[in-house]
Amino acid sequence: MKAVISRDDLIRGITRTASALPQRSSIPALSNILLEFLQEDGALRSTATDLELAVIVDMPATIQESGALTVPGKKLLESVREMPDGEITLMSGERNTLTLKCGKARLTLRGTAREEYPSLPPVSVENPFHVASGVLRDAVRKTIIAAGTDDTRTFLTGVNMVISGSETRLVATDGHRLAICDFSLSEGPHGGKALNVNVLAPARVLSLAALDLPDDGKVQIAVTETHIVFITSGGNYYSRLIAEKFPDYEKIIPKSAELKVTLNTAAFAEALRRVNPFANPRTQAVNLMIKSDRVVVATEAPEFGEAHDEVDAKVTGGAMEISFRARYIADVLKVLKGAELTIDLGAQKLPAIFTTADDKGYRYILMPMRG
Amino acid sequence: MKAVISRDDLIRGITRTASALPQRSSIPALSNILLEFLQEDGALRSTATDLELAVIVDMPATIQESGALTVPGKKLLESVREMPDGEITLMSGERNTLTLKCGKARLTLRGTAREEYPSLPPVSVENPFHVASGVLRDAVRKTIIAAGTDDTRTFLTGVNMVISGSETRLVATDGHRLAICDFSLSEGPHGGKALNVNVLAPARVLSLAALDLPDDGKVQIAVTETHIVFITSGGNYYSRLIAEKFPDYEKIIPKSAELKVTLNTAAFAEALRRVNPFANPRTQAVNLMIKSDRVVVATEAPEFGEAHDEVDAKVTGGAMEISFRARYIADVLKVLKGAELTIDLGAQKLPAIFTTADDKGYRYILMPMRG
Repeated sequence: MKAVISRDDLIRGITRTASALPQRSSIPALSNILLEFLQEDGALRSTATDLELAVIVDMPATIQESGALTVPGKKLLESVREMPDGEITLMSGERNTLTLKCGKARLTLRGTAREEYPSLPPVSVENPFHVASGVLRDAVRKTIIAAGTDDTRTFLTGVNMVISGSETRLVATDGHRLAICDFSLSEGPHGGKALNVNVLAPARVLSLAALDLPDDGKVQIAVTETHIVFITSGGNYYSRLIAEKFPDYEKIIPKSAELKVTLNTAAFAEALRRVNPFANPRTQAVNLMIKSDRVVVATEAPEFGEAHDEVDAKVTGGAMEISFRARYIADVLKVLKGAELTIDLGAQKLPAIFTTADDKGYRYILMPMRG
Repeated sequence: MKAVISRDDLIRGITRTASALPQRSSIPALSNILLEFLQEDGALRSTATDLELAVIVDMPATIQESGALTVPGKKLLESVREMPDGEITLMSGERNTLTLKCGKARLTLRGTAREEYPSLPPVSVENPFHVASGVLRDAVRKTIIAAGTDDTRTFLTGVNMVISGSETRLVATDGHRLAICDFSLSEGPHGGKALNVNVLAPARVLSLAALDLPDDGKVQIAVTETHIVFITSGGNYYSRLIAEKFPDYEKIIPKSAELKVTLNTAAFAEALRRVNPFANPRTQAVNLMIKSDRVVVATEAPEFGEAHDEVDAKVTGGAMEISFRARYIADVLKVLKGAELTIDLGAQKLPAIFTTADDKGYRYILMPMRG
């Protein structure tokens, strides 16, 4: 097999594919990338999978001879990165070797036959629906911060995607906080019928498929009984769905607020950054003292000191003192759009609700710390 | 005690001081920074030491009340970094606390009394000699790459500084390579007499004192029986000398070359970067095949593949094949000035000598690998 491809296309495609390589796997073949030389499509196709998730990227290339083989994924990425500018020729050699040639450089990777790579189950992409790239990217960014990472509680490592008509909701929770993002699909009913979707997708496929999407363009999403598929400008992402049930979160969202605080997002983030080094290393707590016209942000670590700062605020409903895990607030401040942040606080240490006026579809619900 | 100081001066001073904090120490007091409020000098003085090396930085400040105390070094640095722009007020409080105030932010560090900090031995700075900042920085940068890091062979972790008249030489070696840098002091004989210095200074004090020196300005250096002192624009550095003897290195430097290779430094570095991912992980060897008009750079790892690239070269003296540890070549290419690099190679796998025409005082002598 033989292909000629521009270095930029190859780097972009292999970098994206390599992002899906499993960190570690008991199956050695999965540390390889499958390369398919598709003459009819004029494409070099690269695939990586951990058997739960697969990414497939087609790179435009001049294919002079068709074929397929697999090569070590990380070494391929390293090789491509250091290639000089220009056109790169990829050629297979004896015993499944792949040689990359550019200028006088020749890099030869020992690979394996295509047959040694797992075959991916066919996933039908029927009746896909469309989402604007930038909308999906922002919704994923704001939602996945609340997803859990504990592999023993798989249902908390997913993002619940619910579509009714064109109204879409992404929800994630790790048991301490809950992120809800509501938005509309780009186009009305799809495939001629109103959509009715309720699936639990691994946070990983959403972050790989969506986090670096451009503002413009569209993503096609298709859902089957067992799988979800994202067809993006960067590549196609296939993932098994999580079969477990997402928790019933509605009941933990307070229906009314006793106290409402509105403050400047950047000033609040800065004050938190300033006091966080003094947070108690055990609890990581930051204390918010809500006054009539400001919020005092304070931390204390018995071993080395204490810190406080103040942020001007518009407060309705009286005074309150409440503690949160510092990182959980920092996480939402990183993704929130909007200069003004509103925090709704309930009595008896109910969860707080973080919203901004510029970002009406988004809510971040955070449990306060006991104490 | 009380001081007012600009945030920039405080950050610069504390960052520099904190660079000398020991990574770990059995003496808890050494993780603190000593702060001295010196009203007469109009300076806030900060000191850190690991008992071998001490750095002392004077920061211009308005001192309203003299005194001294120590505070946790890393926490002080974190605190200062997150302070808002403007003037910062430092005030001591009860039980050796130190409060930093700026705007509405208040950060309080629990410290200790000055008495709990080790007292540094007085080091006399007599008859200092002068070196141009940029000259010292470049000489240190090019020399310390060859210094060893094995604490059980202390004499290889030092840099041998030899001065005779105004001719100065820095030498370092880890047993595999040897870097020699010759340069002249800024001014002739110092203190009225010709200098005659031969000391072994820890590489650490040289890197801390010299690596980020500006191009302009001068550094004063003084040497006693036991110590070396660097007085730089950034701070004063005191270090114990290494009492052991530096190895007699002259005899390993080949006197003549069988073969001389001259090539473009950047092209050579690029070719090495390209083939290095394919170096055998065990040996990290890169093979140089010297031909009549070029050098072929090649690596091979039985597990995943092989790579080669070519660099045009001017070669006198015939052909040769020789291997080096890839990183040892990469290290010198990072610090070498000059577009053209010359490698002198001797017969029977004698050490190679790397030099450039633009950098006449510098030699990097590298042992080839056996094989």
